[in-house]
Amino acid sequence: MNHHSRVAALLTDFGTFMGYVGQMKGVLLSINPELRLVDLSHDIPPQNVRLASVVLQHSLSFFPTGTIYVAVVDPGVGSGRPGVIVESDHGFFVGPDNGLFGFLQQGGQIRSIHRVVNDRYFLENRSNTFHGRDVFAPVAGYLSLGYPADEFGPPTDGLLDLAVEDFHREGDELIGEVLAHDAFGNVITSFSVQAAHSFAREFEGREVYVFCQGEVFPILRTFSDAPPGDLLAYAGSFQRLEIAENHGNAMRRLGTTPGVKVKLIAM
Amino acid sequence: MNHHSRVAALLTDFGTFMGYVGQMKGVLLSINPELRLVDLSHDIPPQNVRLASVVLQHSLSFFPTGTIYVAVVDPGVGSGRPGVIVESDHGFFVGPDNGLFGFLQQGGQIRSIHRVVNDRYFLENRSNTFHGRDVFAPVAGYLSLGYPADEFGPPTDGLLDLAVEDFHREGDELIGEVLAHDAFGNVITSFSVQAAHSFAREFEGREVYVFCQGEVFPILRTFSDAPPGDLLAYAGSFQRLEIAENHGNAMRRLGTTPGVKVKLIAM
Amino acid sequence: MNHHSRVAALLTDFGTFMGYVGQMKGVLLSINPELRLVDLSHDIPPQNVRLASVVLQHSLSFFPTGTIYVAVVDPGVGSGRPGVIVESDHGFFVGPDNGLFGFLQQGGQIRSIHRVVNDRYFLENRSNTFHGRDVFAPVAGYLSLGYPADEFGPPTDGLLDLAVEDFHREGDELIGEVLAHDAFGNVITSFSVQAAHSFAREFEGREVYVFCQGEVFPILRTFSDAPPGDLLAYAGSFQRLEIAENHGNAMRRLGTTPGVKVKLIAM
Repeated sequence: MNHHSRVAALLTDFGTFMGYVGQMKGVLLSINPELRLVDLSHDIPPQNVRLASVVLQHSLSFFPTGTIYVAVVDPGVGSGRPGVIVESDHGFFVGPDNGLFGFLQQGGQIRSIHRVVNDRYFLENRSNTFHGRDVFAPVAGYLSLGYPADEFGPPTDGLLDLAVEDFHREGDELIGEVLAHDAFGNVITSFSVQAAHSFAREFEGREVYVFCQGEVFPILRTFSDAPPGDLLAYAGSFQRLEIAENHGNAMRRLGTTPGVKVKLIAM
Repeated sequence: MNHHSRVAALLTDFGTFMGYVGQMKGVLLSINPELRLVDLSHDIPPQNVRLASVVLQHSLSFFPTGTIYVAVVDPGVGSGRPGVIVESDHGFFVGPDNGLFGFLQQGGQIRSIHRVVNDRYFLENRSNTFHGRDVFAPVAGYLSLGYPADEFGPPTDGLLDLAVEDFHREGDELIGEVLAHDAFGNVITSFSVQAAHSFAREFEGREVYVFCQGEVFPILRTFSDAPPGDLLAYAGSFQRLEIAENHGNAMRRLGTTPGVKVKLIAM
Repeated sequence: MNHHSRVAALLTDFGTFMGYVGQMKGVLLSINPELRLVDLSHDIPPQNVRLASVVLQHSLSFFPTGTIYVAVVDPGVGSGRPGVIVESDHGFFVGPDNGLFGFLQQGGQIRSIHRVVNDRYFLENRSNTFHGRDVFAPVAGYLSLGYPADEFGPPTDGLLDLAVEDFHREGDELIGEVLAHDAFGNVITSFSVQAAHSFAREFEGREVYVFCQGEVFPILRTFSDAPPGDLLAYAGSFQRLEIAENHGNAMRRLGTTPGVKVKLIAM
């Protein structure tokens, strides 16, 4: 494989309007002009590590093996905690160790984890607040040229920080929350499809319903299994339970915002 | 021509924040790492096929011949209707057959139309709701490598679905509507410049005025032909009649939203 | 250096949803298929030349030498004033001469300035309102292929238009304003860090405070030097004084909008 023509996929909460992301790309192309840059998202709600982690986790399988993921959503920037390079079967992950990459640990596919401490590869005059551009972009650029991860800092046997819990059990209820909304007003919840399935199996013979903002509705296979105007939950493309209104806008109907509580109850 | 370094232009209503578009790009680059990806827009208002069609139609002449356009604005996703590959003098068009590509039929430049049915080229485990990533992106990727359209499904002699009507005649009035607004608050109407010209020629000797939200104003050549603060209509860059306030914001002044009625009247 | 694989960095106030930026990229890739396109920003608030100039100025050092910057924020489009090509130590700058590029003059790094008048290189049937696509994109495309700036118009000894003043002195106060906000609700002011330093040196022995929307707060080195919930000013990544609330959202707390007054006072 030609390292130089690798893909670098970028995921941040920087927004696109002040040129921050463009500056990161300038740094990357200054180091490796052949790199192919893809934006995963730059509109993650500020500091929403959990959502960024979900987007990253469910995007990996669509990218070429060997892709370098630069993910920077970092409420703790400037705190002095070093970043990480994680090498997995999918490629390389560069960013803060704050839960963003925790999901890689569950898959058992991690090859190595290195701390990012060798400031020889960082930009000179680096800022305290913009490690995405000044630390992680140059490290990713050199990685893409084939520099070994050892160059940037020592390997570590420690585990990655895990993201905060997505849902929890209270008696016969599973309690999660709203993670985000898509452009169509569908509501993405924190329940993994897998967790919803396990929960349903546990209460076999009873029907599982979703409760959100005072409304109750079933889990169906696809939109058109619900009458127009009805709410339903279904397995979304992030392998999370999503809520939709068939021919409508669930976000508007329910008045959901990120963090609003969602429950699964067997009835 | 080197197929591999072709341009693929992407047009969707997915928004950019959940990573959907990034995933489509990952799929495309997994198949053809040399592809050059350009975003036409991902902020088409949800399911607004008409506006997407207008943006596509007026963008073609600015792209290299042979460009592959992947356009996915699809209120009927999951309904089972197969997508299409249209080959024209401009290049290839891949997406749902729901009116998006109807304008190609008027130009008489279509070479072939194929249905997209050969699931050998689709992603495994494809979702019911995300054909952009799971069906159209891989098909476009293989097309860009030079695979013939026949590979993906049978040719069809049928016509393409036409987009819904942009305006209609009622007596001496031409009735259209607001399609969209640009970043400057200019109002893009559904009237083609050509239709406005024909209408004016029909009533030669009389002056054609635009009526919208209780205001009346003339069609002028350029902004500065109107006094500052005055409304005017003019031929916009999509070959549609647009409404502006010279040195102002017509959208804010008129309170327009997509779908609001606009009339041309000869006085 | 291989001209063909140059980077072109694009900066506009066009927004991304109507496909305008995609069309510019189509024009650029039609002329030079090897060009590497990077978006600096397309969400500059409409016609905010000053903010665009700040973003451009502080992005240059992160891009490869020889980059071609196409910057189009142009309240005067259609007025007939010719655009410019500025060649500096960083690369080429193409766009209107309305203050966008004035900062290059202060650095003493300009090699040449040419007017853009040779319409042989413009798109045929060009619009009155979209020079970004019809004039500046094709000129940048040919520049990237190595065409000399002389091809596009005569050199000029005249000076570049300077952007409007960022701040001024009134007695013992330095008066500036809010330029913009970032995705985290931090407030970017028009004060350069350098100007704030000079002002502080002038009043050595006294403490300099920032006044904005009825609140008063100090200039500190970094967020964590202020207690959580407190306001502070600090040197931001655009070398401008920025205002933040530690663990909060300064924009929301202060209710700032672009243009709101900010003062530095020595106390």
